[in-house]
Amino acid sequence: MNQRVRVTIQPEGKTVSVLEGTSVYEALGEAGIIIKSECGGSGVCGSCKVRIVEGEYVQEGSERYLTRDEIERGTVLACRTRITSDMKVEIPVESRLFEQKILTAGIAAGPDSGVSLSPAIRKTAVEPPSPSLSDQRPDLERVADSAAVSDSASGVELKPVPLEVLQALPETIRQDGWKATVLLKDGGIIGIESGDTTDRLYGVAFDIGTTTVVGYLLDLNTGREVAVASRTNPQTSYGDDVITRIHFSGSKENGLKVLQKLIIGCINEIIEELAGSAGIEPAHIYEITTTGNTTMSHLFLGISPKYLALNPYVGAIKSACEPAARELGVGINPYGRVYVMPNIAGFVGGDTVAVILASELYKSDEVRFAIDIGTNGELVMGNKDRLVACSTAAGPAFEGARITHGMRASDGAIEKIVLSDGEVSVNTIGDSLPIGICGTALIDGIAELRKLGVIDERGKLLKEDGLPEGTPDFVRKRVIDHETYKTSFVLVEKEKTGTGSPILLTQKDVRETQLAKGAILAGYEILKETLGVSDGDVKEVLLAGAFGNYIRREQAKRIGLLPDLPLERIRFIGNAAGSGAKMLLLSQNLRKEATLISNRTEYIELAVSPDFQKRFADAMFFPLSLKNG
Amino acid sequence: MNQRVRVTIQPEGKTVSVLEGTSVYEALGEAGIIIKSECGGSGVCGSCKVRIVEGEYVQEGSERYLTRDEIERGTVLACRTRITSDMKVEIPVESRLFEQKILTAGIAAGPDSGVSLSPAIRKTAVEPPSPSLSDQRPDLERVADSAAVSDSASGVELKPVPLEVLQALPETIRQDGWKATVLLKDGGIIGIESGDTTDRLYGVAFDIGTTTVVGYLLDLNTGREVAVASRTNPQTSYGDDVITRIHFSGSKENGLKVLQKLIIGCINEIIEELAGSAGIEPAHIYEITTTGNTTMSHLFLGISPKYLALNPYVGAIKSACEPAARELGVGINPYGRVYVMPNIAGFVGGDTVAVILASELYKSDEVRFAIDIGTNGELVMGNKDRLVACSTAAGPAFEGARITHGMRASDGAIEKIVLSDGEVSVNTIGDSLPIGICGTALIDGIAELRKLGVIDERGKLLKEDGLPEGTPDFVRKRVIDHETYKTSFVLVEKEKTGTGSPILLTQKDVRETQLAKGAILAGYEILKETLGVSDGDVKEVLLAGAFGNYIRREQAKRIGLLPDLPLERIRFIGNAAGSGAKMLLLSQNLRKEATLISNRTEYIELAVSPDFQKRFADAMFFPLSLKNG
Repeated sequence: MNQRVRVTIQPEGKTVSVLEGTSVYEALGEAGIIIKSECGGSGVCGSCKVRIVEGEYVQEGSERYLTRDEIERGTVLACRTRITSDMKVEIPVESRLFEQKILTAGIAAGPDSGVSLSPAIRKTAVEPPSPSLSDQRPDLERVADSAAVSDSASGVELKPVPLEVLQALPETIRQDGWKATVLLKDGGIIGIESGDTTDRLYGVAFDIGTTTVVGYLLDLNTGREVAVASRTNPQTSYGDDVITRIHFSGSKENGLKVLQKLIIGCINEIIEELAGSAGIEPAHIYEITTTGNTTMSHLFLGISPKYLALNPYVGAIKSACEPAARELGVGINPYGRVYVMPNIAGFVGGDTVAVILASELYKSDEVRFAIDIGTNGELVMGNKDRLVACSTAAGPAFEGARITHGMRASDGAIEKIVLSDGEVSVNTIGDSLPIGICGTALIDGIAELRKLGVIDERGKLLKEDGLPEGTPDFVRKRVIDHETYKTSFVLVEKEKTGTGSPILLTQKDVRETQLAKGAILAGYEILKETLGVSDGDVKEVLLAGAFGNYIRREQAKRIGLLPDLPLERIRFIGNAAGSGAKMLLLSQNLRKEATLISNRTEYIELAVSPDFQKRFADAMFFPLSLKNG
Repeated sequence: MNQRVRVTIQPEGKTVSVLEGTSVYEALGEAGIIIKSECGGSGVCGSCKVRIVEGEYVQEGSERYLTRDEIERGTVLACRTRITSDMKVEIPVESRLFEQKILTAGIAAGPDSGVSLSPAIRKTAVEPPSPSLSDQRPDLERVADSAAVSDSASGVELKPVPLEVLQALPETIRQDGWKATVLLKDGGIIGIESGDTTDRLYGVAFDIGTTTVVGYLLDLNTGREVAVASRTNPQTSYGDDVITRIHFSGSKENGLKVLQKLIIGCINEIIEELAGSAGIEPAHIYEITTTGNTTMSHLFLGISPKYLALNPYVGAIKSACEPAARELGVGINPYGRVYVMPNIAGFVGGDTVAVILASELYKSDEVRFAIDIGTNGELVMGNKDRLVACSTAAGPAFEGARITHGMRASDGAIEKIVLSDGEVSVNTIGDSLPIGICGTALIDGIAELRKLGVIDERGKLLKEDGLPEGTPDFVRKRVIDHETYKTSFVLVEKEKTGTGSPILLTQKDVRETQLAKGAILAGYEILKETLGVSDGDVKEVLLAGAFGNYIRREQAKRIGLLPDLPLERIRFIGNAAGSGAKMLLLSQNLRKEATLISNRTEYIELAVSPDFQKRFADAMFFPLSLKNG
């Protein structure tokens, strides 16, 4: 089972390379495609239906969840199907998770039927009578009167109209013979265009991550996602983590301006790319929404995040911010707007608000726990009555920081490790020779070694002569005493790497992982304690974000990164931050909910939580055994 | 009575030169100082009390309006006192008209007790607790919470805060150890400053005339006027009248930008001067209000007025406009705002709204008629139930345009003409030799010649051989047949002018005046007809604006420029446009009234009024005789 196979996913046309024997469900996750699964891939809900177009596979027990028609068409449950050759898989629209729930227009409003389409900026076409000596209304009032008629539902008011709209108005309104399109926001006029342009109304939802920036182009007339594009956040060149960037923004000449310019340049590149692939003009984009951590929001807005990094860690603003695109230099329609999501605290940002919104945690009757591991790890727990959140500096280890051969999940990174059948099998991103390991493989490696007893419950990587009896030879021979790194496990021999050196998992890596997972687990304990609940009360653990999405839950539980709950109660929710940004782009009404979430969610500062240090020390140990799985 | 005397007015220290025998009331008018007078200077109300500090005078009948104390202190009624030597006059504060009514703070609100002080931008000092680990509210929310406490009456909301405020916030709030001042407008935060700056809150009301720009600096904490400054509108170099400027704005490269830059430069100069004379910084000025005709407003805002000059003469905007000062480049506080008054129609602007507001025409039980003769003549008639307005191209003649030796009311202009005691007496502005005549003298000259029958009721300036019997010799000998101008009256012989040529009043001048006064009178007739009222129903004629303020009512009636109503029903109301701008600077509440006036006032386009041409032809004749006077 150590062969790699290529899986092509339709209709996207995306291809991923996975180890033979990987489930289709997992392969889709690696491709960043999230599908429905009530049970989180445990094989018991029957939601994750996909169609195998081409290729060989082993599946068991799908039949009871499928109709005869479906079986004839090649439909299987993704989680019950293991891939044994190159494969083409088609995902039917009904199996899409957030895609279906968020992006389809015209679904009736209501908690379970998706997001009703109500973008903040709307258009209405007007064709006022041209002026005459018996009708000398000025241009603005003439247009506004017509807009009030053609858009009677919204109640067009004569709110202050931006000066630049007025300056352009006399020519704009006459250019196409008194045919024009009025842009409305909150009942006020924010722009006027010549002719009828109502068929062109686009927006972009941005997830501005510390590492990656993703933009989703949505057609605001239909709610459909038209294109997606992403870039590495160019601020990365001034520091991998937020703290380094905060220091750069404050200490260097113009540091803040440099970082703001970089992120806005990146956003403008993404806008250009999105417009290009959709065959539209950037001027047809009227609004962008952004989500991200509090530091990313501050830098994007050009507000110094300096005091976020100094005790007591406060930001300049918590509420949503709605500047004009032109104020920030965002290259969309000249009358366009920006909506920056509200945040919760200095280290629990708009991305967490988005997770709460998209997962509907704030409407839940039962207590749920959401965890978003990016460069930081934000944890939130609660239900419709109460929400508590905290932040842990958990991410860097899982993004490769401070790990001996650690690296981000990019080309050449080992992303999966399996110790079985007498050999160490690894899967590498991009099919090239491995050059390092990323977070998911770090968890795999430690979990596999822990399972074999090579790592003890205190996190000690045992020396060769201390290994438990029965340790397989192929494992034993890879435990070495490295002259620099001391006790280490050889994941890949030097002959098989892209660097010419062996790729190791070292004692230090285990310790770093213990710190990271200990912080997360301790945060989880503190949140439970704050709410006065126990594991049994936590209905579900929701894994958000790219990293959460790639985690193998069994392994994560084995090392104690995730609480020891049954797998069906641990659910992937994909890029929930991005989903939240899309929802707020499609629905103005949900922005009130976002503000409510921002205000309602209590932030627990772990640094001042009296129990945290003790919890943290306890949480660094590895579990002795697993109760479920 | 042909000697000139100098009158010094205290406490202003202004000096004017007038003909001996002029009333104190009239002299004050020439100095631009408006005092109380219910009867319009007819000697019957006893309001226009002034104190003669120095100099000789003849007065009759003041006593019955004065107390013994007042008489002992030298108090007289200005309208009943004629000046017979150089004089010093003091105006007690209780005799001030708009000054007293508008600028005194703290007067209880109500229609008869002045304007209550409620500026649009307010300040509140805050001193929030500094952040700690147990209070991690972000800067903005921390400040807003404190502002809501210290300013509970206004209900501070978390409306969108301007981006530049947020960008400056982290440093601003820490600069003076968490002491700050919040700027509030409409309940939202529009600015935050370090320290307690609540004692510095100023505003400037601007009257942007086609010819003259006046700025009034007001202390918005007390309502007091602190300084006044004026400039010639520098756009004058691109045309004396609005039509020429409109053409320039449209036809030349960047014409609009050139004119906008000129007026904003002028306003900034006035701001600098005002701040200098008051000993404050321009940054202590937080708002300016502007009034002016529709073209001036468009040019100030950088909106093309092109279509105002083309049939059917419509502007781009009628409603009030409230841009940020920074958007226009107005040099006040960086968070400052601009309020541009709403207008009524293309040629009835915010200045007319201001006249209606300041004169309280819109609250009047009885019908009143207000007339503002500047470069154009705007007429408005009505009461609390209905208001109608029209515009006439009446002004240019009275500003010297198209008059043979016409000129503006500036140094060297003859401003008064008296034919009596066997000679022609003229008064010249600035005590220099005369070089031309301005509007008031044009009216005087024609009225005096009409009284003697030298001009007949059809406007014919009779030739020497056609003059009525009994025409005095000193008049007869001045009627000449000029080789260029034909029949003319020599006002000043060439030996006594500053030009070396005689200053003439020509047949053409009489015709131009007939056109101008005919237009105004016809407008008056049309307004009466629209409202269905007669002269007897018109309770008062209110004369606004600089020119209206200098007119001698008896002479204006004689030529039929003003309707033939008793003098006590013709009242000067001074620079009512400027007064309106001040009122709106002091009182946010009155801005709603201004909008109401703008929307309620019906505009009559004389060009399409079926009766206008006939009325106009009739109105060009001079009255045969006067019923009252």
